[in-house]
Amino acid sequence: MAMEILDKVDHVEHLLSPEQLRARLQAVGEARYHYRHPFHLRMHAGELTRGQMQAWALNRYYYQSRIPIKDALILAKSDDPAFRRAWRKRILDHDGDKDGYGGVEKWIQLAEASGLAREQVIPFTGILPGVRFAVDAYLTLVRESSLLVAVASSLTELFSRDLISLRMDLMRKHYPYLVPGLAYFTGRLTQAPEDATFAMHYVTNHAKTRAEQEQVIDALNSKCEILWAQLDAIDYAYVAPGNIPPGCFVPEA
Amino acid sequence: MAMEILDKVDHVEHLLSPEQLRARLQAVGEARYHYRHPFHLRMHAGELTRGQMQAWALNRYYYQSRIPIKDALILAKSDDPAFRRAWRKRILDHDGDKDGYGGVEKWIQLAEASGLAREQVIPFTGILPGVRFAVDAYLTLVRESSLLVAVASSLTELFSRDLISLRMDLMRKHYPYLVPGLAYFTGRLTQAPEDATFAMHYVTNHAKTRAEQEQVIDALNSKCEILWAQLDAIDYAYVAPGNIPPGCFVPEA
Repeated sequence: MAMEILDKVDHVEHLLSPEQLRARLQAVGEARYHYRHPFHLRMHAGELTRGQMQAWALNRYYYQSRIPIKDALILAKSDDPAFRRAWRKRILDHDGDKDGYGGVEKWIQLAEASGLAREQVIPFTGILPGVRFAVDAYLTLVRESSLLVAVASSLTELFSRDLISLRMDLMRKHYPYLVPGLAYFTGRLTQAPEDATFAMHYVTNHAKTRAEQEQVIDALNSKCEILWAQLDAIDYAYVAPGNIPPGCFVPEA
Repeated sequence: MAMEILDKVDHVEHLLSPEQLRARLQAVGEARYHYRHPFHLRMHAGELTRGQMQAWALNRYYYQSRIPIKDALILAKSDDPAFRRAWRKRILDHDGDKDGYGGVEKWIQLAEASGLAREQVIPFTGILPGVRFAVDAYLTLVRESSLLVAVASSLTELFSRDLISLRMDLMRKHYPYLVPGLAYFTGRLTQAPEDATFAMHYVTNHAKTRAEQEQVIDALNSKCEILWAQLDAIDYAYVAPGNIPPGCFVPEA
């Protein structure tokens, strides 16, 4: 009880040092980042069928397609040309310089490597409502929060490099048909750490009160929930039989 | 191909009769209303443990608690005192005339009958992010759409009476500990059909073009997805072991 009161006082009064803030963010990622999700564990163990990988690629495309929109919402929150120039890189990474380039296109190529047709992927036909609701919650979070919180919600990139490296090795091993579609992950191996460094630097410098630091931590937590819930919906619908919601993608037998 | 073109012409040009509109709505409900959801099938078969019923009551409380807020958003869209007077009944049904009455309170009593403490239910601690995202998508749909679409999204009440009657019988049979908490459903047995009749009458009279009629049908479809996705999240987390997302309610063993 005494400890609880102490924690509360501490929580209210003391600004975390940059190292303490980073440690708190690291702890959120370790507990809640989706690298621990049952669907990823199955994927990395090589247990997923081609139809299940297709369902994942198709549904995750909705998330991928919203990333530049999310980044444009963040851009629109800033009064600072230097910030906007730096953040603009993310939109470029995902949209590319011309048709046929960029992360969104590369994700379509991954879905094609899984055996889906581009025309099937782009219109979001048959994606899971649970995935859509989670991704839309991300856009709402970014749209309705401060620039600080919106930037902080991107901090899951602190953890994505390790997941992507692991995933690329295991995809080559377990799902060789995906190899022609791995360019998205190759790009993210360098982009994500750069982006995470920028965002980490930003939140460290702009969270000026303990309350703002807690908002940063909460934002990372919320983003972890958004990523996790997408995999909940995919794992539920496509692993055990009988759970695909009405109207959603049905893999070929 | 000829048939497809014909359908398209028909879709664009012809206003549905009230009977045709009702038949289309009925067909959506039959295919997509959550009475067919695997979690409800398990519930009605008496297969759920007390912990699983608690998880359902706790998570569904978030939906219940948002209903009067959703209805206030709808009220705020109308310029017509007569409409607002009629719709106000729904807020009264859920909030009651004084503390301790109304549908929201009755749902808390159901959760208490399942063995949860009121203090555990009211703050939404440990609810599934997937449930929260689906329910928040309902508020967003209502907030951002026309009055016609917002009203149409309530049309799932066309189908709720049958589900509730069936559920009450089966709950008495399979989950007798819930009997002291069934007042919510007793109330809804008469409220839901009254509300559905009003909403059906409203959309029939206010959808003046085929495009508006299609919006009405789409709204019912979206609402069915919102209800279904909540049960997807609950069924995923609480039926098979190992799937409860980090930070969510864990039933006692």
